[in-house]
Amino acid sequence: MVATIADTRVLVAAARKRGLSVGVVPTMGALHEGHAALIRRAREETGYVVVTLFVNPIQFDREEDLARYPRPLEADLEYCQSLQVDSVFAPRAGEMYPDELLTAVEVGGLSSRLEGEFRPGHFKGVATVVAKLLNIVQADRAYFGEKDAQQLAVIQKMVADLNIPVTVVPVETVREEDGLALSSRNRLLLPEHRAVAPLLYQALSAARASVEAGATDPHEARNAALAVLAQAPAFRLDYLEVVDPAIFQPVHVISGEVRIVTAAWLGSVRLIDNARATC
Amino acid sequence: MVATIADTRVLVAAARKRGLSVGVVPTMGALHEGHAALIRRAREETGYVVVTLFVNPIQFDREEDLARYPRPLEADLEYCQSLQVDSVFAPRAGEMYPDELLTAVEVGGLSSRLEGEFRPGHFKGVATVVAKLLNIVQADRAYFGEKDAQQLAVIQKMVADLNIPVTVVPVETVREEDGLALSSRNRLLLPEHRAVAPLLYQALSAARASVEAGATDPHEARNAALAVLAQAPAFRLDYLEVVDPAIFQPVHVISGEVRIVTAAWLGSVRLIDNARATC
Repeated sequence: MVATIADTRVLVAAARKRGLSVGVVPTMGALHEGHAALIRRAREETGYVVVTLFVNPIQFDREEDLARYPRPLEADLEYCQSLQVDSVFAPRAGEMYPDELLTAVEVGGLSSRLEGEFRPGHFKGVATVVAKLLNIVQADRAYFGEKDAQQLAVIQKMVADLNIPVTVVPVETVREEDGLALSSRNRLLLPEHRAVAPLLYQALSAARASVEAGATDPHEARNAALAVLAQAPAFRLDYLEVVDPAIFQPVHVISGEVRIVTAAWLGSVRLIDNARATC
Repeated sequence: MVATIADTRVLVAAARKRGLSVGVVPTMGALHEGHAALIRRAREETGYVVVTLFVNPIQFDREEDLARYPRPLEADLEYCQSLQVDSVFAPRAGEMYPDELLTAVEVGGLSSRLEGEFRPGHFKGVATVVAKLLNIVQADRAYFGEKDAQQLAVIQKMVADLNIPVTVVPVETVREEDGLALSSRNRLLLPEHRAVAPLLYQALSAARASVEAGATDPHEARNAALAVLAQAPAFRLDYLEVVDPAIFQPVHVISGEVRIVTAAWLGSVRLIDNARATC
């Protein structure tokens, strides 16, 4: 494990000297099979794999969410080793933010609705820390999960707009057998909430089925999803929308590919998920 | 001359393969001896020198300033050749901004006053395009003039905050024999304005002399400068301030190093300049 930016750069430069391509998997730690899918993909496609573990304070809109975000460092390091990761960069906050941070990277439009609306400042924090991590590691390829679809779109747009020299590789969401998307927050669910949590993906699947059966009205798809969620009154919905996958704005008529995105609370845990659908 | 990002990257990668370090001098063209000082410094310190020529539309707050900004491309290319520049990157706007630009880099605090106050959005445009150019060229060293002192501070802070892997090298302002700081805008001055323009630097020098004579009250230094400017009623002042050189905020008591910064109009031309002083 490496805790400093300087040491990470030395390791990456040495790998490059040996002619290796470099892949980076930026994470907040608390690794699970979803991260493993990113790491395995990086392992397949690049010669030197760097995983970053950093619970980034500036992307949390709620103090208590930051405070209780899991940080099982030892287990994460063992997991990385088992996946043949070459280098783990796990900086402290003081290494990433040594002075007062004055600079922010913002991706307008894409960041304004859905997650951006319910978590003010979240995407600014994500874009800024991802820009930093990409500049620190200087990888050829960077791997991000599709579970955070809007985040992925924000990062892809940032990389394109700022000409950051990296290829962003999206990796499909990994799910439990019952359909629940893997997330580090799942372990915080109460048992009774964990039991109904799979309904979130069932709801998205119902919306997708509605689109694929020919629904062009987003309300129809949305209602199909809401009917599923209604089975568990514990769900408190932030949003469930049918959006244009390029700009993450709600569509008025479904035509071609859309993404159905949702965020909902179970107790004090907020879950997000999404599904693609094509009409 | 190279007009595309892809070709620039190929040339820089080839230079790196030959073991050369890379220097970049980002400019808006209309090159003069001030730029030559940046280029010569890059030539001394790096093995492969890239000059970028790009009149960046998103940093102009006034349409007419953008429209009449000089663009003598042929002369610039010859000048670069005479200075043994290895590669000139002169993209069209469509190459730099192919799609709707949603991403912005902003440096808070440092950007808010002085130039930031009088040219709303200016530093956002500067920071964003410089981030892009640094990512495109991926140089080891980037050269910027001290004439644009606040811009230099904004860029230094951005590079530090975002961990952009480049060393920013400040280069001292080049002046005409009469003291006027070189600027591409000087050639737009009417003859009667060109005649009094050197008073701007004489005013800064008077403020510096006041500080070096022991003035600790910024008003005293400021008044010394204003007395000089009063000799030419044609000057219309945007600001003249004694600021902390790290944060570009006015100081209340002068102690240690300060920077005296000014912006003033002569006719329809806006000039800026600055001077360091130590108490």
